[in-house]
Amino acid sequence: MDINALEKIALTVRSLSMDAIQKANSGHPGLPLGAAELGAFLYGEALRQDPADPAWPDRDRFVLSAGHGSMFLYALLYLAGYQDMTLEDIKTFRQIGSHAAGHPEYGLVPGIETTSGPLGQGIATAVGMAVAETMLAARFNTPTRIIVDHYTYVLVGDGCLQEGVSAEASSLAGHLQLGKLIVFYDSNRITIDGSTDLAFTETVAQRYQAYGWQVLTGSMYDFEDLARLTEAAKAETAKPSLIILTSVIGKGAPHKQNTADAHGAPLGGEEVAAAKAALGISGDFYVAPEAEAYFATKRTTWQTNRRAWQEEFQRWSKENPDKRAEWDRFYAGEPAQGTLPRFAAGDSLATRTAGNKALVALAAANPNLVGGSADLKGPNAVGIPDAGVYGPANRGGRYIHFGIREFAMAAISNGISLHGGLRAFCATFMVFSDYLRPALRLSALMKQPLIYVLTHDSIFVGEDGPTHQPIEHLASFRIMPGVLTLRPADAEETAEAWAMALERQDGPTILALSRQNLKVFTKEDPDWRKKLRTGAYMVKKGADVPELVLIATGSEVTLALEAAAMVQGKVRVVSMISRERFEAQSKTVQEGVVPPGIPVICCEAGVRTGWERWTSPEGIFSIDRFGESGPAPKVAEALGFTAQALAALITAKLRCA
Amino acid sequence: MDINALEKIALTVRSLSMDAIQKANSGHPGLPLGAAELGAFLYGEALRQDPADPAWPDRDRFVLSAGHGSMFLYALLYLAGYQDMTLEDIKTFRQIGSHAAGHPEYGLVPGIETTSGPLGQGIATAVGMAVAETMLAARFNTPTRIIVDHYTYVLVGDGCLQEGVSAEASSLAGHLQLGKLIVFYDSNRITIDGSTDLAFTETVAQRYQAYGWQVLTGSMYDFEDLARLTEAAKAETAKPSLIILTSVIGKGAPHKQNTADAHGAPLGGEEVAAAKAALGISGDFYVAPEAEAYFATKRTTWQTNRRAWQEEFQRWSKENPDKRAEWDRFYAGEPAQGTLPRFAAGDSLATRTAGNKALVALAAANPNLVGGSADLKGPNAVGIPDAGVYGPANRGGRYIHFGIREFAMAAISNGISLHGGLRAFCATFMVFSDYLRPALRLSALMKQPLIYVLTHDSIFVGEDGPTHQPIEHLASFRIMPGVLTLRPADAEETAEAWAMALERQDGPTILALSRQNLKVFTKEDPDWRKKLRTGAYMVKKGADVPELVLIATGSEVTLALEAAAMVQGKVRVVSMISRERFEAQSKTVQEGVVPPGIPVICCEAGVRTGWERWTSPEGIFSIDRFGESGPAPKVAEALGFTAQALAALITAKLRCA
Repeated sequence: MDINALEKIALTVRSLSMDAIQKANSGHPGLPLGAAELGAFLYGEALRQDPADPAWPDRDRFVLSAGHGSMFLYALLYLAGYQDMTLEDIKTFRQIGSHAAGHPEYGLVPGIETTSGPLGQGIATAVGMAVAETMLAARFNTPTRIIVDHYTYVLVGDGCLQEGVSAEASSLAGHLQLGKLIVFYDSNRITIDGSTDLAFTETVAQRYQAYGWQVLTGSMYDFEDLARLTEAAKAETAKPSLIILTSVIGKGAPHKQNTADAHGAPLGGEEVAAAKAALGISGDFYVAPEAEAYFATKRTTWQTNRRAWQEEFQRWSKENPDKRAEWDRFYAGEPAQGTLPRFAAGDSLATRTAGNKALVALAAANPNLVGGSADLKGPNAVGIPDAGVYGPANRGGRYIHFGIREFAMAAISNGISLHGGLRAFCATFMVFSDYLRPALRLSALMKQPLIYVLTHDSIFVGEDGPTHQPIEHLASFRIMPGVLTLRPADAEETAEAWAMALERQDGPTILALSRQNLKVFTKEDPDWRKKLRTGAYMVKKGADVPELVLIATGSEVTLALEAAAMVQGKVRVVSMISRERFEAQSKTVQEGVVPPGIPVICCEAGVRTGWERWTSPEGIFSIDRFGESGPAPKVAEALGFTAQALAALITAKLRCA
Repeated sequence: MDINALEKIALTVRSLSMDAIQKANSGHPGLPLGAAELGAFLYGEALRQDPADPAWPDRDRFVLSAGHGSMFLYALLYLAGYQDMTLEDIKTFRQIGSHAAGHPEYGLVPGIETTSGPLGQGIATAVGMAVAETMLAARFNTPTRIIVDHYTYVLVGDGCLQEGVSAEASSLAGHLQLGKLIVFYDSNRITIDGSTDLAFTETVAQRYQAYGWQVLTGSMYDFEDLARLTEAAKAETAKPSLIILTSVIGKGAPHKQNTADAHGAPLGGEEVAAAKAALGISGDFYVAPEAEAYFATKRTTWQTNRRAWQEEFQRWSKENPDKRAEWDRFYAGEPAQGTLPRFAAGDSLATRTAGNKALVALAAANPNLVGGSADLKGPNAVGIPDAGVYGPANRGGRYIHFGIREFAMAAISNGISLHGGLRAFCATFMVFSDYLRPALRLSALMKQPLIYVLTHDSIFVGEDGPTHQPIEHLASFRIMPGVLTLRPADAEETAEAWAMALERQDGPTILALSRQNLKVFTKEDPDWRKKLRTGAYMVKKGADVPELVLIATGSEVTLALEAAAMVQGKVRVVSMISRERFEAQSKTVQEGVVPPGIPVICCEAGVRTGWERWTSPEGIFSIDRFGESGPAPKVAEALGFTAQALAALITAKLRCA
């Protein structure tokens, strides 16, 4: 270990961070200055990766969970030689077009493993990466050839450890015995409001021991200590490790260090000057030549190591052609179509049940599909009999018992997806999607193709009552950019919806599924499967020029068909599996289904918001209040959400027209 | 302690629960059967309350955090003599109109202290109740007269303790040294998926010790133990207590107890019969006469105790007339108007800053207004200089440092509000409202008048980038039933918005406030303050019959005024502080502001959803993608969200019309 070089790297992290933040007049110097030594150690010594091949599958992952300290990461990526992070990017920190965005953004620059900033999620996402590593290792390594074998390193701050999602994920990580997860806790005891004494006085070490972690402590500013602790973390293979590093926020800023002032605002020109004087540097954006030289050599080592892996990978490929073929399928991204289950008109089953049949079929065709539920395996119907349960004793298992931890489940699933090689799904009751919403937003922001199986998708949940009946949730998914919401109307549509979800590569998909049984209905159009993919199709055409178009989603298509059968008049019934996808179609496609100038009624067991695009307020048959506890049909009656009421509305509309 | 009677109470809880769930063919027998002894002990022995006066301010609170075990609570409320919980209600468990709803619903029956069911929130809400007790005790007790002195009891299960929100709240409860919070952990080690070994193997006791709690352990089925443990919990006045009770889920059901089958489905007729035989009872809905007799006597004791308190309260009132007057104001519900800050046209300040001035003024006029932020006191601008910081050393403090725990913050605030006597606000960045959304939903469902101060309400956050820029959030509040969203456009509107939020008694209010400075604009209508309360008013009338109506909210009103000044044509500019409130007005009021048949443009720095009611898709000036990192004006430029672009849209619309 070249301590002198590491010191110069730390110095450079401080220099670049101070100046970039000062120049941007925005940013968080506290972490990059306070944890610069850890950064120097990680990138200069510990991490096994290669800037020349940032996507190398077996690289060590590093997650900056405390994403506000983004300059920490940018300075190190630049020094390490990630080509897309230039000094110019750093000089334009937090400006439009710079790769050095306000918070680390996945996809903007190779080397950023996840978007972070929303606190607590980074470490939870890293848990997912560590899970993925063990899954792939179990699948691909052989007794003689190890091709999946990397660590997942994380830097967390006080903020991350106060958030509930980190608690959920850490408890599960301990249970899962993720021995290759190594978390450094930058314990500076300062948050925005001031000292952690204001709100955070628990004993973190004891808490993590309770989770089943190895807990180590040391100083942020002793490289020997960092090396020793990291070795100890690696030596403990049955427990994740938390390394608590006592640190000083904003270290190096003579007047502001160890105060909340250093956390989230530029230090100010005077303080920057004083810091530079104290650090013995002059000029702006100073990069220590020793740091540059060190990484120049390091890059050779990294490349050598990566090439050694590639040679091993070639040997493994030759010896294990089947595994290699599977590896290629895992990393290809294109899912296999599989043999979707078929249903017959008149079959009566819940779409969650049909979803299970599709999931089982697709999981058989796509062995890289993994996932689970937040303790609702049965109710969500997401069990995969042949997939095995993932755990310390069975790393090859593909079903994950996430426990009653919806938020961590989704963040961990993000991590599994980000890792590469695997496709992830996760499941809970739709109403509890509120618990995981921040992770869903990150799935969308990072364009991760997660599949969210959300069952019990309306008041037809019944007896569990308003706390368990989604009302605003379908609308809540549709308003989030990049999310695809699919609400299939019967078993046949559900199988297609699962295929559509798996086909999607560039963002998360919600599968909104019913608790209650629904009869498979007859589709007039033999080409409905193709048209379904436009977001909507005619279940019942009514006439070439109908008198009224009745648009419904999910279980309400059945309601719409019932109502249409009760009235006089040429009523067209449309199943709109995805409003956002249909709204993205050409006007021609849209008008082929919903002709202009004809009265429209929209029917959905949820709030009306968003349907105003398709009809007048009076034409929306919706539920704009919380639900009730009772058997589902009685709840529907109590809320006036019945086929009779819908038929009456249709008749009234027909009369007006 | 009459152990025989307590046993009969437990027997009755089992009997009623089994039969009610069986009759409903829906429900969760596992908890009521498994924890019946604790229920008997709590209601038969520990709780100090009075069914004859369920609103008695100094009653002990009991929160069934594991709300799915609702029959546990209903059986006990019935036995204890809460008049609104009848045997008929229990016989119609989970039917429309029954007071025995699927999950306990606040407001349906006195004796239910909070709605529970969404796991983890019950205990967090209870933390808020315990906080409120200490605040009121500090305010009203005197050295010689104690009128606020009660415990907050909670029952949690494995599920509650896996959820992150309980972790956040428990950490804070330990920090706050809430010695009168006593949590019983029904540790049956079974969840829906099966054994807790599947996902939850941490050492809970050690974790709670790390939080600074007293942890005690014992058996669910030993009344002496329960009494001893409860006394020990009370004896520890500087720490909350977690009492871990080893239990058997579904105890009494001979074949299903200790299995996941007992958790969430009726036992089945055969198993109910077998259980009854084993318990030595026959007939349906059996109520042990000894239990009835015991509570008949108990009610007298309860009444005597409550009357003793009332006498003490009268003595206290006489000796402390000022305190009594304050008490009455605290419990009246009607807030004092205070002297709202005034601003002058041309003043330039962020609405968050204006909000702070209003908050300080209203807090001075309403000493029962308490709250805080999730570590963003400065950025959210919610400090109240004279209010003091709440904590173990200052129970009279009114500002709460919640730490970086948004979800627990909101759930705790629900508890403070539910306790009675206090009004609560809480604050974070708007984008992180996602973290607390499940608690916001409960605020709405329970009609609690919480005030959510959500600052940094758009892409004009700037440099922090897409993770910190709300896009879909305003829409996300508006779709939730019972939530009032106020987005004031300048400092003057902000002061009024705070007053409107405080006036509201029947549900939560969102105050959406800007990070960036906004100039106070001139209002043409002297009566604007009154009209603001209808949800929208004309900032600039344009003409009696304008050529175009430009509706904007919040900071976009300034943008709208700028754009309107750039174009030729009679443009009316409307500030719509609350779309939902305006949509609830009569057609006359609405058309007085937005006349029919005139082109409309809606302008908001967020998704378009919901604005379709007011204009065609082309008339919506919105942001339907995630943001960018950069200085706010540059972000707006990058997204095409500028006054110039809006002016161009207006001009185009005017030409078409």
